[in-house]
Amino acid sequence: MPFRAPITEYRFLLDHVVGFSQVAATDLFSEATPDTVEAILNGAGKLCDEVLAPLQRPSDLQGARLENGIVRTTPGFAEAYGQIAEGGWVALSAGQDHGGMGLPIALTSCVNDMMGAACLGLQLNPLLTQGQIEALEHHASPELQALYLPRLISGEWTGTMNLTEPSAGSDVGALRSKAEPNGDGTYAVSGQKIFISWGDHDFGGNVCHLVLARLPDGAPGTRGISLFLVPKLIPDENGNPGQPNSLRVVSLEHKMGLHGSPTAVMEYDRATGWLVGEPHKGMAAMFTMMNNARLGVGIQGISVAEGAYQHALAYAIDRKQGKPITGTTGAIVDHPDVRRMLAGMKAELFAARAIALANAVAIDMARATGDAEWSARAALLTPITKAYGTDTGIAVAQTGIQVHGGMGFIEETGAAQYLRDVRVTAIYEGTNGIQAADLVGRKMMDGGEAAFRLLQEVQDGAEAARTHLPELAGEVWDAAESLREGTEALVAQDMVDRLAGSVAYLRAFALVLGAHFHLRAAIADAGQGARAALAQVYIRRQLPQYTALLAEMRDGAAALYALSPEDLAA
Amino acid sequence: MPFRAPITEYRFLLDHVVGFSQVAATDLFSEATPDTVEAILNGAGKLCDEVLAPLQRPSDLQGARLENGIVRTTPGFAEAYGQIAEGGWVALSAGQDHGGMGLPIALTSCVNDMMGAACLGLQLNPLLTQGQIEALEHHASPELQALYLPRLISGEWTGTMNLTEPSAGSDVGALRSKAEPNGDGTYAVSGQKIFISWGDHDFGGNVCHLVLARLPDGAPGTRGISLFLVPKLIPDENGNPGQPNSLRVVSLEHKMGLHGSPTAVMEYDRATGWLVGEPHKGMAAMFTMMNNARLGVGIQGISVAEGAYQHALAYAIDRKQGKPITGTTGAIVDHPDVRRMLAGMKAELFAARAIALANAVAIDMARATGDAEWSARAALLTPITKAYGTDTGIAVAQTGIQVHGGMGFIEETGAAQYLRDVRVTAIYEGTNGIQAADLVGRKMMDGGEAAFRLLQEVQDGAEAARTHLPELAGEVWDAAESLREGTEALVAQDMVDRLAGSVAYLRAFALVLGAHFHLRAAIADAGQGARAALAQVYIRRQLPQYTALLAEMRDGAAALYALSPEDLAA
Repeated sequence: MPFRAPITEYRFLLDHVVGFSQVAATDLFSEATPDTVEAILNGAGKLCDEVLAPLQRPSDLQGARLENGIVRTTPGFAEAYGQIAEGGWVALSAGQDHGGMGLPIALTSCVNDMMGAACLGLQLNPLLTQGQIEALEHHASPELQALYLPRLISGEWTGTMNLTEPSAGSDVGALRSKAEPNGDGTYAVSGQKIFISWGDHDFGGNVCHLVLARLPDGAPGTRGISLFLVPKLIPDENGNPGQPNSLRVVSLEHKMGLHGSPTAVMEYDRATGWLVGEPHKGMAAMFTMMNNARLGVGIQGISVAEGAYQHALAYAIDRKQGKPITGTTGAIVDHPDVRRMLAGMKAELFAARAIALANAVAIDMARATGDAEWSARAALLTPITKAYGTDTGIAVAQTGIQVHGGMGFIEETGAAQYLRDVRVTAIYEGTNGIQAADLVGRKMMDGGEAAFRLLQEVQDGAEAARTHLPELAGEVWDAAESLREGTEALVAQDMVDRLAGSVAYLRAFALVLGAHFHLRAAIADAGQGARAALAQVYIRRQLPQYTALLAEMRDGAAALYALSPEDLAA
Repeated sequence: MPFRAPITEYRFLLDHVVGFSQVAATDLFSEATPDTVEAILNGAGKLCDEVLAPLQRPSDLQGARLENGIVRTTPGFAEAYGQIAEGGWVALSAGQDHGGMGLPIALTSCVNDMMGAACLGLQLNPLLTQGQIEALEHHASPELQALYLPRLISGEWTGTMNLTEPSAGSDVGALRSKAEPNGDGTYAVSGQKIFISWGDHDFGGNVCHLVLARLPDGAPGTRGISLFLVPKLIPDENGNPGQPNSLRVVSLEHKMGLHGSPTAVMEYDRATGWLVGEPHKGMAAMFTMMNNARLGVGIQGISVAEGAYQHALAYAIDRKQGKPITGTTGAIVDHPDVRRMLAGMKAELFAARAIALANAVAIDMARATGDAEWSARAALLTPITKAYGTDTGIAVAQTGIQVHGGMGFIEETGAAQYLRDVRVTAIYEGTNGIQAADLVGRKMMDGGEAAFRLLQEVQDGAEAARTHLPELAGEVWDAAESLREGTEALVAQDMVDRLAGSVAYLRAFALVLGAHFHLRAAIADAGQGARAALAQVYIRRQLPQYTALLAEMRDGAAALYALSPEDLAA
């Protein structure tokens, strides 16, 4: 059974669950009419089904490699990327000033989702370009914008982000890369960067690196970091790729998965770069794009959950083994535990996707209205989307392997690849631990106000649902109430205790939100039928974890630090 | 930091947690004195540290391969296997009648545990031989025993289990392999078997296959299956490997992990075999060995958890990144969320290992005393050990990757290999879903009696612990009470509902047992110190999941079957 982009699911979520109609009703996004939405979803879906999905296994088997300093990508990738660019799928949300369509992030998110489900390794390329476009739109000079944006938006050129160094990972402020003024407005950028996804390729065009480095007068730590645009080929006076810049791919990493995406060690040796934004304000520029990039990575997790789910379901419907004690098909999908796995996968996938699209809607509404409450909503949801989306990707891929039984461990089956590919999404763009720290730290600097506002909506939704689904609605209301009390307890904790419970708290929040959206879906389905059954699966079989998670959050850090490093090693 | 076998941990568990002294006090195991135990743990530990652990990475990079019909194993494996055999580590528990030492399974379990932690791919080889020895000890004729057992016990020859066929996996009864009498007491065995671990190797000696096949008059299904011993080389009149038998390795699987262990497709073409046990009673013979084999696989999960934990801890103690807001080392081990991950890994590993060793003690006590209550205890614990042990291996390996951050996704680091290797343990020897079905089905045919007896011990232990640790003891008592009530609810459910909640129920049971053993460890440590802190980590941060799991169990199957296969595909 070949991959099919879940078009109707996106439509259902946009129309009935995450309030996309509010976005389409704004002036800014008035072009996002139902017809446009349908045309985009169908067009992207066709590309995913026919062009990207067939590259999934090849991307694993014949991953990117470095040959004499040249990166060679999976056979078929260059052509497929050409079709992504030609179709205008690289940057639907880029501004119209430089050739973009200015469509909502919610739509871009659906397209990213289906592209990632079809072939994650290739999808990561335009995702990175999207982040670069956003950074340049917000921070680059008009001259840089005019030169780079049209070419990035069209997909002719691609973008990368260069943050990490061997001794500067989660602690970006420790970086050592330097930039010295050349006296002509450009800078000489030097240093080694690691984990640079799509650091080079053989698609033609140009590769534009956004590089964090420190100016000679830059303070230590994050406050002394500046952002530079460093192209692989220096554009000539006509804007065409010209002389090679002084940079190179030193090596590609040998990774657990995502073999299709070349992960480069990059060496910059007085490479010519252009400052993006103010000197020493590089971190601020990175933060602008980080929220959307984290949404994008959360959606990668959801993508893989979609791919792994479709793959496992097809197997379970096809595979005869044993005589199921109930059901009608005679295939393993009728075995109770297999049915449980599949229903659980689908329920979790729905929840994670709804959270991500609600996050995208909040970003769109913040842009369209300038309303600080929408901004706060988007900021609050982003670490939840990223961590829960990628954790869902891992969990669903794990379960997908299990559905396959022994075949799941055999690489030809393809189930293992989903797990190997998605594993990195819980790590890059800020580990999921960093996401949780962001949630309980920066995102609670309002004392929990944005959280309480959102939980009030969850409880209002549960109240409204009581007519049709009294029991499930009651369970969601109670969970939101516990989370509200838990949030009050959290903001009263000191930071060590907060951080010790941060991952648990984030997951509890995600479960409550997931249950909220499931309830909405069930009500949209008149409180009966498949949506209500799926809501019950989620609310009865996954949501109840919140009590344990909040208990963990409340336990604080004392027992953890009662164990010394020596105790841990004993 | 190189791997070190956790000798003191085994000693602590045997002496203070799982009641090994009862085993040593029996006549059957009177030789298992403290000195013997210490000599065995130290001797095996030295082999693991010095010989097996260095083969871990090579086993992944240079896995087994098939060359012109010959299986070539990882360089170094043949020599290391020679040392395992020479040291007498293949079969510590084999009977003394045929050259074994007749030591308790609890000791074998510790040795298997450390060997698996050092190099899982190689450890699987003697584990399979252990299973074969047990099958032959119980079911083979004296002649077969005299010929095969001494050579298997010494490790000169190795054993395999051939159950699975392309259309007969979890449903063994669907197998198509045939055996026809040759008229001279031997049988001509024909058929294809898949997923045959260590189906061949280049260690010398002989490879002895236990093959399930159907005699001409065998009924359909599991009741018509017989068990045959089919050696790769037919022993001559002196018992030396002679003429090649009519069998071959068709191919080796390309697996997600465990590359060191060759997984063969085997073809038998009228190969000469000897009947083991009665005609048509092959499944009964398999069941004899299955409990111990499942214990062995559960321990494989625990092994990998040990390896992954040591590996992640070493990284976290060494790696400086960011400035921890508390702690004294300046390394990432002091970041609250990293500390949480490591403490959680250690707590879960302890719990799973204690359950497995308690299971082994029950097996030993059943053998030594013939007491039906010990047999029932062993039978009850086995699916829990297998599923929780392997789930723990997967979870700890996952977290180990996360502790490493970006380096965790790079294969050279070694963290990913633990996950790739251990993943199959949740699948083979009966998937973890099959384990859960066994627990709620066959193991509850006593109406829950063995479970209630065990839970009474848990509650008695909690009562005794109230003096030192009133709060933690109270939480364990409450959890055991909920599980007791949950068990009553479970045995009243129909089988579809039971199966739908079986995995959740098994996990809840494991958590309660894990908490019970943590409490015992804390009390042995006078209710304070590192053991008590670790008990708190487990009881406060992991045990509370039981409420959600029991809620899931109680929800039954209705919502799952309200979703049709078409709904799942929509």
